[in-house]
Amino acid sequence: MRQRLLTGAGLVGVFTLLSATPALAQDEGVTADAVQAALDNIWILIAATLVIFMQAGFALVEAGLTRAKNVANIMMKNLMDFAAGVLAFAAVGFAFAYGPGNDFIGTEGFFLSSSTFSEGFGTLTTPTFFIFQVAFAATAATIVSGAMAERTKFKSYFIYSIVLSGVIYPIVVHWTWGGGWLSQLDTPFHDFAGSTIVHSVGGWAALMGAIILGPRIGKYGEDGKPRAIPGHSIPFALVGVFILLVGWFGFNPGSQLAADPVVGQIAVATVIAAAAGAVTAMATIWIRGGKPDVAMTGNGVLAGLVGVTAGCGVLDNWGALIAGAVAGVLVVFAVLFFDRVGVDDPVGAISVHGVCGVWGTLAVGLFATDGGLLYGDGADQLITQLIGVVAVGAFTLVTAGALFMAIKATVGLRVSAEEEIEGLDVLEHGTAGYGPDMLVGAGAVGR
Amino acid sequence: MRQRLLTGAGLVGVFTLLSATPALAQDEGVTADAVQAALDNIWILIAATLVIFMQAGFALVEAGLTRAKNVANIMMKNLMDFAAGVLAFAAVGFAFAYGPGNDFIGTEGFFLSSSTFSEGFGTLTTPTFFIFQVAFAATAATIVSGAMAERTKFKSYFIYSIVLSGVIYPIVVHWTWGGGWLSQLDTPFHDFAGSTIVHSVGGWAALMGAIILGPRIGKYGEDGKPRAIPGHSIPFALVGVFILLVGWFGFNPGSQLAADPVVGQIAVATVIAAAAGAVTAMATIWIRGGKPDVAMTGNGVLAGLVGVTAGCGVLDNWGALIAGAVAGVLVVFAVLFFDRVGVDDPVGAISVHGVCGVWGTLAVGLFATDGGLLYGDGADQLITQLIGVVAVGAFTLVTAGALFMAIKATVGLRVSAEEEIEGLDVLEHGTAGYGPDMLVGAGAVGR
Amino acid sequence: MRQRLLTGAGLVGVFTLLSATPALAQDEGVTADAVQAALDNIWILIAATLVIFMQAGFALVEAGLTRAKNVANIMMKNLMDFAAGVLAFAAVGFAFAYGPGNDFIGTEGFFLSSSTFSEGFGTLTTPTFFIFQVAFAATAATIVSGAMAERTKFKSYFIYSIVLSGVIYPIVVHWTWGGGWLSQLDTPFHDFAGSTIVHSVGGWAALMGAIILGPRIGKYGEDGKPRAIPGHSIPFALVGVFILLVGWFGFNPGSQLAADPVVGQIAVATVIAAAAGAVTAMATIWIRGGKPDVAMTGNGVLAGLVGVTAGCGVLDNWGALIAGAVAGVLVVFAVLFFDRVGVDDPVGAISVHGVCGVWGTLAVGLFATDGGLLYGDGADQLITQLIGVVAVGAFTLVTAGALFMAIKATVGLRVSAEEEIEGLDVLEHGTAGYGPDMLVGAGAVGR
Repeated sequence: MRQRLLTGAGLVGVFTLLSATPALAQDEGVTADAVQAALDNIWILIAATLVIFMQAGFALVEAGLTRAKNVANIMMKNLMDFAAGVLAFAAVGFAFAYGPGNDFIGTEGFFLSSSTFSEGFGTLTTPTFFIFQVAFAATAATIVSGAMAERTKFKSYFIYSIVLSGVIYPIVVHWTWGGGWLSQLDTPFHDFAGSTIVHSVGGWAALMGAIILGPRIGKYGEDGKPRAIPGHSIPFALVGVFILLVGWFGFNPGSQLAADPVVGQIAVATVIAAAAGAVTAMATIWIRGGKPDVAMTGNGVLAGLVGVTAGCGVLDNWGALIAGAVAGVLVVFAVLFFDRVGVDDPVGAISVHGVCGVWGTLAVGLFATDGGLLYGDGADQLITQLIGVVAVGAFTLVTAGALFMAIKATVGLRVSAEEEIEGLDVLEHGTAGYGPDMLVGAGAVGR
Repeated sequence: MRQRLLTGAGLVGVFTLLSATPALAQDEGVTADAVQAALDNIWILIAATLVIFMQAGFALVEAGLTRAKNVANIMMKNLMDFAAGVLAFAAVGFAFAYGPGNDFIGTEGFFLSSSTFSEGFGTLTTPTFFIFQVAFAATAATIVSGAMAERTKFKSYFIYSIVLSGVIYPIVVHWTWGGGWLSQLDTPFHDFAGSTIVHSVGGWAALMGAIILGPRIGKYGEDGKPRAIPGHSIPFALVGVFILLVGWFGFNPGSQLAADPVVGQIAVATVIAAAAGAVTAMATIWIRGGKPDVAMTGNGVLAGLVGVTAGCGVLDNWGALIAGAVAGVLVVFAVLFFDRVGVDDPVGAISVHGVCGVWGTLAVGLFATDGGLLYGDGADQLITQLIGVVAVGAFTLVTAGALFMAIKATVGLRVSAEEEIEGLDVLEHGTAGYGPDMLVGAGAVGR
Repeated sequence: MRQRLLTGAGLVGVFTLLSATPALAQDEGVTADAVQAALDNIWILIAATLVIFMQAGFALVEAGLTRAKNVANIMMKNLMDFAAGVLAFAAVGFAFAYGPGNDFIGTEGFFLSSSTFSEGFGTLTTPTFFIFQVAFAATAATIVSGAMAERTKFKSYFIYSIVLSGVIYPIVVHWTWGGGWLSQLDTPFHDFAGSTIVHSVGGWAALMGAIILGPRIGKYGEDGKPRAIPGHSIPFALVGVFILLVGWFGFNPGSQLAADPVVGQIAVATVIAAAAGAVTAMATIWIRGGKPDVAMTGNGVLAGLVGVTAGCGVLDNWGALIAGAVAGVLVVFAVLFFDRVGVDDPVGAISVHGVCGVWGTLAVGLFATDGGLLYGDGADQLITQLIGVVAVGAFTLVTAGALFMAIKATVGLRVSAEEEIEGLDVLEHGTAGYGPDMLVGAGAVGR
């Protein structure tokens, strides 16, 4: 790469330099390949930035759909998901996922040791590849906080979060994107941007967490019937949805891992599915509940996005439309189902990321323009997709379940009833999430 | 394009592959033209992402400047604007706008049929071009929701929104960016990023909507004088302004439709106009009202941005400064004017997007460095700009007016007085926008 | 550069043109150097956009950590920081910083006069370079508003902000990035993205502002002991932190000023430091105060980011980890220290940007892989870093101090006690930041 005399946000001594070497940028010349490599790295860094922005989206969705007395706690969990996730993934997760090893797990490359990854990843440097991957790891972890909201000890959540980002999720990645056994089947498992690998892992872990924790106090009446516990801010939830939509433009197109013009089509598939999910979720709840519920429609957007994440590289626009539209219907029934069977998921994370993650993965087998049942010539891809869904699901349920049980048996998983009623903000973190000039009514703190 | 073995967020079998083909990225070589094309597509995808982010900005501005009892409704309208707009524009709008046809409307290319657009748009693939255009279509639609806030039926708004994104806006695009009659005048109409094509279309439709709806209950006293109905959250409104400012860095520079270094100057013109609009709007309301009003200053930023949108490619910095500064003054007087004449626009959308959209279009004729009155050698450009403003304004007023009247005569346009007083959130959508732990005082719901 | 026929958000006459020149993009051909230059400009424009987004982050952090009665005022200050800063930096600041001149200050190039900067900045055009630099100038200014929150006259703040963006900060830039005396030392001062140049300038100015203003009414009891004045919205503060984190992906990697694959490593160093700062700040306050405080952990993220800003181009991952981890500890003790000695900084800006800015600058001298004490072969770099820290600190303290004293002696710096108690929103700006449907309790307005 040509030498650059630029350093930092300014150009030290730019005027001197320019008069001495007026043709600075041209005097050595770059190759088109080098420019493509630079472009690839820049693009993936930008995509990673968009994915990291999704953390704010998750935080807002979860904060909006839960109560004001727990708002600082849920924001903090989302923040520490990210912080702890980054460190855990850098220390061990990245090696487990992408390090040399066997078909099950990577065994070299801990602490980003540069000798292991000196060749980079295609045109991407190891740091560029890492920054994109670590953003995904944090996403997987953060999905869980919503399902376990309003009753989980912060310390316990913190421990869980490290293990998910550092061990469980990376192993699933190794099986697939890391070149492990699921990618070596005769018909390899296809999950372009992670309906199964990222979202369903989060969703399954969320399911185990919600089951092991049990429902919030007051969620089920004496008759066992679910009671709605309204969140405290629909605007927070919807701004979160918008931010997640924006972040998905890094999540899906960035998963191409290169600056290829095909990312335009990936983005179109993504936005069509998001729009379809919004419309069908709205229509479903409107027909079933009599009103176009706002939070459910927001979840419809996310459902559509999760539903197209696996297939956004191989679905045409009609396939994306169907993937998103079906996800929008599914999420409504799934939310109602989990509510009815006693799994208390305050934000619908299991339905959005688990159920629609599975759906999106199967949709590849059904609608992929190359290999899917509809356009292809057999059920091979669909069978592989099923194998992947089941294997990842079983692995995550078992490991996340064991982890939550171990935490429960040691430091404990759930806050005291007193704390749950009073709110986690004051008793776990020492301050209310809103000042006394903002909070009133039932559950208000500091009064 | 060289073969890429990268698939999805990981690299399947990366280690095997790398040892087999160590010089993966180099072994075929790319041409500089291909890299430029890739860069063009990546840049426009990122610009589209920024424009889509503007949806969150519009939602927050509108939510902040209206009352808490309608906050879920306004967020939902902004969300469904986008969702419905994407589907309508994909189905028919894109074909009307950019499909082959006559000078008035495109007649081929419905449902993104790939045969129609197989050549792409310059270096942009059709999907990349589409994703940028659909973001603009959603912007045009979403402008209207603010002016019609707090009293419009959700269902009616939803219908309107589909027609605007799918038919009215695309026809205006066809006349101009699509190669239709306004682009074929001897001196072609110049609207670089859409002061007229996007913003004034939204503004004129907003004007018709606000007139046909009539003012909110309580907006005008028995003496006919306007009464201030304060919004519920200035921080929401200002965060929305910041997000819109950020999004405009996609909107204006992205409208170059290519990764050309000139985008830097477009961005500078944009930010100078935004800053100038903020300062002059603040000064104007300060002098006139005695205080530096925050919401009005926020609208000044948006006014400056709209005012430079048409000309950001042909104005120098002084031209941008004047365009933005005048817009900042105009918006204050326009808001006061519409208030006085009985047009109730809760967020000032007509003034920001309609009035300043017109101003920005005319500013091209006055200040463009090539063709404007000041630097050029005649009034030709100014006359063309006037023709464009009037033609688009008349077309939008007539079609949007007819549409709103048709909706009013069938499903109805306005909610009942009871619903308006109680708030649209509970009665239209079934849940309050804020939980009972957040909402108090007049207009609070659920009590 | 090859001719482009694209104009604005559409392609005028695209179909005609395409049939006439089917190979539009190829018919002239571009050089790889030209594509690299285009890529450099696009990347820096995107990075600038991310940095401008940080304005929303600062606004939310500051709004969240202060009281509801002052929320519109703090948002307005952040907005006008930006607006006034852009105009001041364009008019004179950019010339002072990067214009030809002497070792202390630039003396040519006012009002972006194109003849002065016609050669651009390396591959960047002057406008592209300017848009990145102006975003930095606005950042320096906006840091101060937090420390002076809840008691500063808006008008006075506005004046201060113009001088900081237009004069004080640009002079410091000239010394360093602009090629002035600090960049000409035998071992040149190294501050890659501005721990000293941007953050400590903001921090020192904040310190002088907070001292000259004095503490808020009620901050210190009759015994002289500090009393906590809780902010009104932890979710605002944490969303602000997330946005700042995202913006830093433009701030640090963008400071490379070119699309070089090394930006990946800069981003990794940045995110590791942010994560480390979060974890150590949380641990420190947890040990010291008994609870994992949320606002302090949020400040830990920012501390880690500021702490790695100077060194992100020359620290390896371990160096970044230490820089961030130490910053996370420092910020907690610094906040407690300033609180104890009577400097009332409502949001901790002095600690985050001043103290950690100094730390980050020294960390370069300690841990830089090339030149630092640990890996290098002497204390030269560390001594230079100290010189830079002291020189910039002294200059800023003196000039900002003189400025604030001058403002105090003329228009006055502080609002009246009545206004401070009632809230700045109503009395300075004429409207409450929240509607009557949102605000209750002590300090509520409009009741």
